[in-house]
Amino acid sequence: MTISMYNASVPVFKQMLASMSHVLAKAEVHSKEKKIDPAVFLQARLYPDMLPLVRQVQIAADFAKGVSARLANVEVPTHEDNEQSFADLQARISSTLAFIESLNQAQFEGAAAREVILRPGTPKEKKFTGLAYLCSYGLPQFFFHVTTTYAILRHNGVEIGKGDFMGL
Amino acid sequence: MTISMYNASVPVFKQMLASMSHVLAKAEVHSKEKKIDPAVFLQARLYPDMLPLVRQVQIAADFAKGVSARLANVEVPTHEDNEQSFADLQARISSTLAFIESLNQAQFEGAAAREVILRPGTPKEKKFTGLAYLCSYGLPQFFFHVTTTYAILRHNGVEIGKGDFMGL
Repeated sequence: MTISMYNASVPVFKQMLASMSHVLAKAEVHSKEKKIDPAVFLQARLYPDMLPLVRQVQIAADFAKGVSARLANVEVPTHEDNEQSFADLQARISSTLAFIESLNQAQFEGAAAREVILRPGTPKEKKFTGLAYLCSYGLPQFFFHVTTTYAILRHNGVEIGKGDFMGL
Repeated sequence: MTISMYNASVPVFKQMLASMSHVLAKAEVHSKEKKIDPAVFLQARLYPDMLPLVRQVQIAADFAKGVSARLANVEVPTHEDNEQSFADLQARISSTLAFIESLNQAQFEGAAAREVILRPGTPKEKKFTGLAYLCSYGLPQFFFHVTTTYAILRHNGVEIGKGDFMGL
């Protein structure tokens, strides 16, 4: 019994991007109710040399689009990383979701065995099979940033729980 | 092109349990060097009503063994959740790894379509196909607790980075 590379990637990204949008929406409501400048949340970190919330969201969205695009063998869409508000972050997530939803099962044919090369021609070049790229690299990276987004908000008092994270 | 349920689960759990063991080992060294009672780290939380580090590790290990066991259609091994030191947590991870490594590809035949029922006969009963159980439930839950383990240690000053988390 096997599963398709599409089923192991696109629905997971969709579920967790929707959950990230949901916890950010709760954070925005919280910031309004408590009269806290939204920038406090967007720039919040768990430690001084960790990335702030806004970067966690951008990078999570980047992994969702980058992994999906490379497995589907299409160009990775670019984003400017200029988000400065909750609304901007929601737009970034929506745009990422729209891209992922534009992909179809057939584009993932052969993706498990296809060679994926990150940063080709640079000293940081990395080569994977599509399977390893998804399971041992893409999903761990993606979940790292989605969970860290949640953790930063939770640490800063936003009332969210595991159900909000799971997005089920 | 398809991938096996085994390849989408067991190697991912192995990689991330090894990474969790690695960051906990770094935390133990840190606690010795800084003369900080290890219990301070084991009981550390990101927010008062979040679970402490020791529970994050236990639950991550539980998802790794539970998801693997249910997909392989074998009984889920039990653990007592009585860990009280870094050494105990390392033993818990080792025991979980040993169980997962005892499973083989053939046991995962048919797992994607097999019905998985959590907490059967209780008000919290949940039914999934094996595919949904792994991709939309088991992996998100597992990564949540592995990442939160990392986040708690990072927030408490242990010098770990993304490379430690990725375990590659």
